[in-house]
Amino acid sequence: MYNKRMNLFTDIQKPTLLLNEAVVRANIERMTAKARAAGIAFRPHFKTHQSAEIGEWFRAAGVQAITVSSVDMALYFADHGWRDITIAFSANPRQAETIAQLAEKIHLGLLFENIESVQQISAKLRAPIDAWIKIDVGAHRTGIPATETEQARRVAVAIQNTPLLRLKGLLTHAGHTYTARGAAQVCQLYAQSIERISTARRALQTGGITPLLISVGDTPASSLCADLGAIDELRPGNFVFYDATQAHIGSCTPAQIGVALACPVVALHPERSEAVIYGGAVHLSKDFFMEDDHRAYGWVTLPQETDWGAPLPGAYVASLSQEHGILHLPEADLARLRIGDLVCILPAHSCLTVTLMKRYLTLGGRWMDTLNV
Amino acid sequence: MYNKRMNLFTDIQKPTLLLNEAVVRANIERMTAKARAAGIAFRPHFKTHQSAEIGEWFRAAGVQAITVSSVDMALYFADHGWRDITIAFSANPRQAETIAQLAEKIHLGLLFENIESVQQISAKLRAPIDAWIKIDVGAHRTGIPATETEQARRVAVAIQNTPLLRLKGLLTHAGHTYTARGAAQVCQLYAQSIERISTARRALQTGGITPLLISVGDTPASSLCADLGAIDELRPGNFVFYDATQAHIGSCTPAQIGVALACPVVALHPERSEAVIYGGAVHLSKDFFMEDDHRAYGWVTLPQETDWGAPLPGAYVASLSQEHGILHLPEADLARLRIGDLVCILPAHSCLTVTLMKRYLTLGGRWMDTLNV
Repeated sequence: MYNKRMNLFTDIQKPTLLLNEAVVRANIERMTAKARAAGIAFRPHFKTHQSAEIGEWFRAAGVQAITVSSVDMALYFADHGWRDITIAFSANPRQAETIAQLAEKIHLGLLFENIESVQQISAKLRAPIDAWIKIDVGAHRTGIPATETEQARRVAVAIQNTPLLRLKGLLTHAGHTYTARGAAQVCQLYAQSIERISTARRALQTGGITPLLISVGDTPASSLCADLGAIDELRPGNFVFYDATQAHIGSCTPAQIGVALACPVVALHPERSEAVIYGGAVHLSKDFFMEDDHRAYGWVTLPQETDWGAPLPGAYVASLSQEHGILHLPEADLARLRIGDLVCILPAHSCLTVTLMKRYLTLGGRWMDTLNV
Repeated sequence: MYNKRMNLFTDIQKPTLLLNEAVVRANIERMTAKARAAGIAFRPHFKTHQSAEIGEWFRAAGVQAITVSSVDMALYFADHGWRDITIAFSANPRQAETIAQLAEKIHLGLLFENIESVQQISAKLRAPIDAWIKIDVGAHRTGIPATETEQARRVAVAIQNTPLLRLKGLLTHAGHTYTARGAAQVCQLYAQSIERISTARRALQTGGITPLLISVGDTPASSLCADLGAIDELRPGNFVFYDATQAHIGSCTPAQIGVALACPVVALHPERSEAVIYGGAVHLSKDFFMEDDHRAYGWVTLPQETDWGAPLPGAYVASLSQEHGILHLPEADLARLRIGDLVCILPAHSCLTVTLMKRYLTLGGRWMDTLNV
């Protein structure tokens, strides 16, 4: 094994997305077990890994229902044997015919937040689908505000009056937990979100809209909160790999991060504590998080005998252009680096890095594709 | 034509990268003519369009030599008949063997900024290549600082002492013009950059390193500065499409932007002046520019009879998540929008949007691939 892995690092010539299978399988197992212990249906979001093969690791852990973020992703996973898929994106009427075809083949769930989408989608349907009402509990990306129960009621009635739509319940993505740090802050926001969506449900039920399930699922809360509350379905996605942003929030330890981008060092600038890598925005994406007073597009590790190693304290990806990455490194780390060495980057946002890289190389030396190949 | 274009917009179901061929060909013609009139060699950067077919539009305008940003991109364009390619990225020793194979087939140029890369690359070479010394004139991304002429001299001597390396000159990317606004600021920074690289050349020539060409080429200066100064080669790339960032700088008019992302509207939130589109970070990239006090990930247009229209004043892409885009829109524009309508986004950074989208649809209804397909 030692030699094999050394060869893996030795052979890498250009930015390569490495995957630690043991870490990823453990992340899957941990979250699956947590949902099972809580008696909550688990419908993991597959937008992070986007890979049929990693989907099989979920299946091996007992998962049968999944979440995706686009119709294309639903088609891909349907082609790979998944028969129960929710597209967690407010339904796009322009894809109504594709959706209708897919609904004839699998058990499909869609999100609605306005009557126009209900009408335009249902006009094409030939088979039933599950309909969720998309609720905004504070992230303010989209969805009906949890307080606007009359608006939610009108959409619910429109769904109930549409023969091929089965009203399932209320769904939210409490994405504002990404602004928090640590379990206390994250779980306080989570509890507030659950309170808001539960209040909305009670108001709807009082008005005769019943029964209604509740589906939630951001990675910080799913990872950190011991008590997930009175919910029916959990849909986290990023936890399969985590990333530097999640470790910064506290959702995971750095050792639980499942992917890293291996990058060659092409220039050293010790006078400004920087190294330049071949690895830029077309590999990592331009996503970043704020760490102290600087942007961090990722953390930096040095390959070890058995894996890509732990993040170097004080080191980070300070900026990115199309193909260049600029690393800020402490003096002692910079002094160890040589032109042509390999460093690994724990990305700020693994979902976007996966989208750009399209393929994984496991530490065992095996290539795995995503739907983007 | 009217009907055809209306059908084009009518048929679009999901985020689609539109290309206006007439605008793109005019951008190519204008820059080619400018370099020709100035008597400067023109080596356009193909990292923006990444397309063999658009490469042919450059060839039709008389271009024979090109710039790319990676070895993979060089291989792709070599496969499509290009015989004179500079890889404008500090040479990556880990790709030395691939580079050596390519150098046996085409006239290849590489960038060097340290002796280690000179040694590691040349150790594999079987055919000669052009060697440029990468100079930093103030962008501080990478390169030897223009003032560090002794460091540049050592690299130049190492190149001269390597039989298969032909020292061509000094190359820079004055990327700090992206921080400027308007011709006066841009051209002042440009003149300063040319002064710095020319001073470095004089110092090297005084030390016996002669002759040395000068190669430059950022899009703002190439577009805006009437006098490009005493340079030998011009290498802009982004000008082929431009984007909202370039229009914000003043490098182009909005009407000269050659690509736009068509996106369906999936939700409306008039209470906070927002619309939600299907079109997010996996389509546009997370790049943004600062406009007044807000981030702008792009500008917003409404499709017209003949094209995608002009940017709506006061409208912009305010935030992006994986598949969602949040548009900020003036009240009157928002009032016109309906669920299922199509809007077009002039991206903040066309190069990254192209990388993610992989294909273009011309306004004439023809699909064109990039190397990422």
